[in-house]
Amino acid sequence: MLRSQPLMTDQDIAAQVRSIALDAKRASRVLASASTARKNAVLARVAGALRGGEGQDVLDANERDMGAAQDANLSAAMLDRLRLDRPRLLAIASDLEAVMRLPDPVGQVESLRTLESGISAGRMSVPLGLIAMIYESRPNVTADAAALCIKSGNACILRGGKEAFCSAQALAQLFETALVAEGLPSAAVALLPTTQREATLALLSLDGIVDLAIPRGGEGLIRFVVENARVPVIKHYKGVCHVYVDQSADYDKAERILVNAKVQRPSACNSAETLLVDRAIAHTYLPRLCKAVTDRKVELHGCPDTLALFPKARAISDGDYDTEYTDFVLNVRVVDGLDGALDHIAKHGSQHTEAIVTEHYGHAQRFLREVDASAVMVNASTRFNDGGQLGLGAEIGISTSKLHAYGPMGLAELCTKKWVVYGDGQVRA
Amino acid sequence: MLRSQPLMTDQDIAAQVRSIALDAKRASRVLASASTARKNAVLARVAGALRGGEGQDVLDANERDMGAAQDANLSAAMLDRLRLDRPRLLAIASDLEAVMRLPDPVGQVESLRTLESGISAGRMSVPLGLIAMIYESRPNVTADAAALCIKSGNACILRGGKEAFCSAQALAQLFETALVAEGLPSAAVALLPTTQREATLALLSLDGIVDLAIPRGGEGLIRFVVENARVPVIKHYKGVCHVYVDQSADYDKAERILVNAKVQRPSACNSAETLLVDRAIAHTYLPRLCKAVTDRKVELHGCPDTLALFPKARAISDGDYDTEYTDFVLNVRVVDGLDGALDHIAKHGSQHTEAIVTEHYGHAQRFLREVDASAVMVNASTRFNDGGQLGLGAEIGISTSKLHAYGPMGLAELCTKKWVVYGDGQVRA
Repeated sequence: MLRSQPLMTDQDIAAQVRSIALDAKRASRVLASASTARKNAVLARVAGALRGGEGQDVLDANERDMGAAQDANLSAAMLDRLRLDRPRLLAIASDLEAVMRLPDPVGQVESLRTLESGISAGRMSVPLGLIAMIYESRPNVTADAAALCIKSGNACILRGGKEAFCSAQALAQLFETALVAEGLPSAAVALLPTTQREATLALLSLDGIVDLAIPRGGEGLIRFVVENARVPVIKHYKGVCHVYVDQSADYDKAERILVNAKVQRPSACNSAETLLVDRAIAHTYLPRLCKAVTDRKVELHGCPDTLALFPKARAISDGDYDTEYTDFVLNVRVVDGLDGALDHIAKHGSQHTEAIVTEHYGHAQRFLREVDASAVMVNASTRFNDGGQLGLGAEIGISTSKLHAYGPMGLAELCTKKWVVYGDGQVRA
Repeated sequence: MLRSQPLMTDQDIAAQVRSIALDAKRASRVLASASTARKNAVLARVAGALRGGEGQDVLDANERDMGAAQDANLSAAMLDRLRLDRPRLLAIASDLEAVMRLPDPVGQVESLRTLESGISAGRMSVPLGLIAMIYESRPNVTADAAALCIKSGNACILRGGKEAFCSAQALAQLFETALVAEGLPSAAVALLPTTQREATLALLSLDGIVDLAIPRGGEGLIRFVVENARVPVIKHYKGVCHVYVDQSADYDKAERILVNAKVQRPSACNSAETLLVDRAIAHTYLPRLCKAVTDRKVELHGCPDTLALFPKARAISDGDYDTEYTDFVLNVRVVDGLDGALDHIAKHGSQHTEAIVTEHYGHAQRFLREVDASAVMVNASTRFNDGGQLGLGAEIGISTSKLHAYGPMGLAELCTKKWVVYGDGQVRA
């Protein structure tokens, strides 16, 4: 692995990226049939290294990144995202150990059954092959992504943000060492040696070599990947999530769910950005809901009906309904019952997470059935759309594209299912 | 719907395709929540129309296509593919009725379970939305694709081959009429009004409107779609399928499977193109296998070891191992045991269908686990990789891409799975 980011011509870069990818692809064949014990042993070694002396190498590398970031006058929020310290390193180690404890998805066969011809056929979960992760500056993503790929039997190529390049190098080095120590090819976890745009473009062009690209980060990064990829992409642009409070809602549940969906962690993609209130109850109930969130420092952008009922709200502006604030800001709109809510969500939703609060059976059923989103909730906070909360264990991201995975992508979603057929000499009539 | 293929500028075409797609997308929302009974009623109406007087309209339209095709000197095979007659029309009607009888995948919820937080979460099967089918000259594909899309709650845009344009128009018209008669939007089945390349390009560029493109046809068509699509594509380039006869094979099973895989229908993508024989048994057994297929008019292309044992074979040429013959031609190669077979398949396979003939438990397990293909068979003919044979019912095609569907795509694979959460006021801690 190169230790710095050298200057290369575009052709050099493309050739080098292709060569790294071909090595990783070859390694993926080995990883696909590696035993669960061996894959877990790799993760255990990396976790052990992070807890031990080698953790210091990662902290030293991170210090170099932090120095450069300070020189470049990055924002305090960016610096915080980039920073590693001993507790954060231990948290990464714990995350690796949590992935170790998850069941291995590889080789699992579902719905094996005997068919009329006498053959028995089922679907076996097998790794996708080679996964390209394209992400930004959080150093822990390097470790999480590598761990989930290894556990699911995939090789991966990592392209982290340039701010975190040294940290990513140090972390990737730990994986390479652990792979070799367990007799697996080090090429199964490869960090791109440069974060130059040309390298990413070369990576995204490798149809037939890279089986899947997963971009994680801001909308700009994701659009760049979608625009330029010749390989399949699973993505999520943004989370514009709604809480709809129906005429028949239980008011206490509605207030509790709204507060949790907006306030518990506004920076998360599954936080709510817009409250929709049924006109039938707006007069009595909208002010109470608004107060519950403004008491918690949330700024409101309201539709005209909302302003009439809760004058402290600001007037809604163009584009607000399509904005992911990731902050203490909430749109509020009065809608004409369930159909009004469904129309608003169809127009402004981001296919991420949508919630209804209702005690009306038919409304709950229609909302569940008709809303197009990766997760649709009745009487529960939008914040539950998360791999851990939905029982998948760790996730590599949340997909709002419908192909292959819709919602959190855990180990099972990093696999595909091939048909396996057990016969006894059968032929087709 | 336009009745002919008018000349338009590229911008006109792009605008018109976009407008058709937006109408179809709106229709997809209605179709997604249409009842099973209503969707089946549409298929029943079309089947009834084909069996009745309107069938003649389709035959008349097909006659126009056939006339143009004869004028254009199309090959006999092409003409046969294009031709409709009364029995073929009745076969299309029967296929529609078979799709009616399949269970409706929409709304099915799997693995619903209660989690620690108290929410119950599961995955609900829901339509993908709007599917673009891009295919060639078989008229029955128009009806099959429309039927499978309707039954799975999807809208579709059909772009058939220009040779079959009139036939496709007449068939699409039957679907539009049936949709309207059942109170569903006719825009849910839309035939592109022109088969010009610019229309296909415009359709493939509609990211966010078209949810999936499925090309069906020759490798050239599929590469064109992959190169130009901004929307997700599920595809299969070709089927270069292998039968590997292991040292411990039962000779009778091996012969039966080889003959079936090669001879039963050589034009099918799941037919075998290459026989691999373990060196340990080649001397005694390869001549018998070769004779079994040459007796059935198969021409052999053999490796040097094969030629020594069966001199009637032609010498293998460059590229033969990567060729889908779709004809009575078979490559024969002697390999060094299971590892030799796995290496050959990894290099020359098309991720379609691979079979081993063996009585050795460990070899069967390794082959099943290690071969990367949409279907892997032990002691069964490659011809079983088919939606009907694997218990899915009708299929819209076979995918050799790993994302979303690997193998035959039936109704379930035309859906995605969203999370549904039943709560009682739960919030995230």
